[in-house]
Amino acid sequence: VSVRLHTRVTRIQPDKKTVEIEGDEQLPYDYLVVATGATPRSLEVPGKDRPGLFYMRNLSDAIRIKKFIATRKCRSAALIGAGFVSLEMCEAFNKIGISPRLFDRKNLPMTRLGGRFGKQIVEELTQHDVLYLPDSMVERFSSSSNDEIIVHTNHGAYETDLVLIGIGVVPEVSLAAAAGIKIGPTGAIAVNEHMQTNIPNIYAAGDCCESFHRVSGKSVHLPLGDIANKQGRVAGANIGGQKIAFPGIVGSNCFKLFNLEIASTGLTLREANETGFKADAVTIEGRSKPHGYPGAEKIWLQMVAEKESGRILGAHVIGKEGAVNRINIVASALTAGLRVADLAYLDLAYAPPFSGAWDPLHIAAQRFLK
Amino acid sequence: VSVRLHTRVTRIQPDKKTVEIEGDEQLPYDYLVVATGATPRSLEVPGKDRPGLFYMRNLSDAIRIKKFIATRKCRSAALIGAGFVSLEMCEAFNKIGISPRLFDRKNLPMTRLGGRFGKQIVEELTQHDVLYLPDSMVERFSSSSNDEIIVHTNHGAYETDLVLIGIGVVPEVSLAAAAGIKIGPTGAIAVNEHMQTNIPNIYAAGDCCESFHRVSGKSVHLPLGDIANKQGRVAGANIGGQKIAFPGIVGSNCFKLFNLEIASTGLTLREANETGFKADAVTIEGRSKPHGYPGAEKIWLQMVAEKESGRILGAHVIGKEGAVNRINIVASALTAGLRVADLAYLDLAYAPPFSGAWDPLHIAAQRFLK
Repeated sequence: VSVRLHTRVTRIQPDKKTVEIEGDEQLPYDYLVVATGATPRSLEVPGKDRPGLFYMRNLSDAIRIKKFIATRKCRSAALIGAGFVSLEMCEAFNKIGISPRLFDRKNLPMTRLGGRFGKQIVEELTQHDVLYLPDSMVERFSSSSNDEIIVHTNHGAYETDLVLIGIGVVPEVSLAAAAGIKIGPTGAIAVNEHMQTNIPNIYAAGDCCESFHRVSGKSVHLPLGDIANKQGRVAGANIGGQKIAFPGIVGSNCFKLFNLEIASTGLTLREANETGFKADAVTIEGRSKPHGYPGAEKIWLQMVAEKESGRILGAHVIGKEGAVNRINIVASALTAGLRVADLAYLDLAYAPPFSGAWDPLHIAAQRFLK
Repeated sequence: VSVRLHTRVTRIQPDKKTVEIEGDEQLPYDYLVVATGATPRSLEVPGKDRPGLFYMRNLSDAIRIKKFIATRKCRSAALIGAGFVSLEMCEAFNKIGISPRLFDRKNLPMTRLGGRFGKQIVEELTQHDVLYLPDSMVERFSSSSNDEIIVHTNHGAYETDLVLIGIGVVPEVSLAAAAGIKIGPTGAIAVNEHMQTNIPNIYAAGDCCESFHRVSGKSVHLPLGDIANKQGRVAGANIGGQKIAFPGIVGSNCFKLFNLEIASTGLTLREANETGFKADAVTIEGRSKPHGYPGAEKIWLQMVAEKESGRILGAHVIGKEGAVNRINIVASALTAGLRVADLAYLDLAYAPPFSGAWDPLHIAAQRFLK
């Protein structure tokens, strides 16, 4: 099989089984994989094309930002949006001596996870010299007399050397849509479990396409690197003749923010109820290791489950250590459809350097059963 | 409900519903919980009652050992046996400046997990000034002229200030057996899922009783603290009127040895085949974090699964970090009866500070599917 990777495709012609390269060359294919990814959502305000405004999507973006910081000797940065990218970039800026300001349209970061989690994220940011500005709408950008950027918001104007905009991504589906490939309700390419689009010899994988969410039973657009990797493997295997299925996702994700781990999987209580479950949640404060063991850190865990059946629907955890571990155990439980009662007595590997005999997961599940 | 805790029971009389305290007082009960634990297996060799020989089972043992070390100004220790207790005690001795010698009857520690794992344990011991002596049978103890202990083995005699014997434990079932409580084939008290013995108002919990192993389908004796905790809770709940079941165990365990994490769950390949499964295993070398990420450490993972169905049967992991986390994900998978194909695409929370997009668990499962 000859495989070609093209980044300059300007048209897909399913009826002719060809793609057009840079508006010119016609290239035939037997199978086509659309892996066009996602592009940053652009901030449509006056001054948006000013130099010094960046989006962070790929390696070239990172190199351009580093170069700009070095040439202009940047000392300050404004981050617009408070998602994964912006929060992770706070740490990156902090490490090179830039104290960023973070402009969030909402009143707390990660509102999806609830106020308790959002407040701890703000606390962590503040402890690391990040100025968090809630309820901030950016209205326009302008230049100061000394060539700095002025960020004009509903709460006043701020001078900065560099602006990084991280307000989400949109699936890049223009080529696919123009070719008649079906786009799902999320705006991303609709695929079946073999990563096949509505056109049988055209597959899609990665940030441009949807995933089946095993907990909600719905197609979602979750542009995450590990999902893209798995989808690509499944698409390739099917084209190669192996009839394997991508079993879908459960919505696991995590990120590190300075000394905090923040991780979640499945549905939040609100999402669960909106999906049609009759769900309940418990929140506990636990410890990563037994009380009194050196290095034991507090962790907060919220667990969501269906009231009647006890089926686990999701969880999120925040803490200085051990958050991601716990979420991955729940991810496995969600994949299998385990109930809270299963988790309440789950046989986890126990030794004091790693957890208590009753892990925070056990404690949350036991609390739920009461 | 009035609950009494007795450690001086000398006889259980199920027909009279009483226990005898120190051969004298008769105490009536409605329900009885036998929680007699386990006792260290004693090393039956000449000189075994010499001062300076210790077993480590509870807090009093630890206090007595510390006192002995302080009064005698111990500089050396001999550890007999290479199980969890001995290996963990190596670190404890090392921390107070005592370089222990470890006498193992076998040719590698943790033989259950195979040679690769055993060799890494020996390497870790050696790097921390623990002298590992394989194939060593202790024949007797004697005293030197300067009141040191001499450990006589098949490979010669060794002088030491203190001896710690850790050659396993046996369930303490003498009271139970004398009362006609059924003892299972493992030598521990047989219980049903409510932790009830063959005598309906007598329950048992902890290291004195058996557990149902969900993977092998057999009753096993696994004297571990977290299992004891869970069993106690189930016994208490049932006596209190809640009809809850202990769902059993999957055989998860872990320990820390200096900078190594060693963890396992389920069955090894040999155990699986002996149980009657037609099993296969894959072993991979992976990394705790993506290649190139600061602090990424090598980890070795062996995964065991049924050949035909792909049902996961067990795993063990060794490495400087991330071993326990992976085992707990597999523990959850074992509880649910997941297959290798489920694990191969399991939606774990991914971010480079915590793991690669393809986690070692994914890689092992993908390898198994080939």
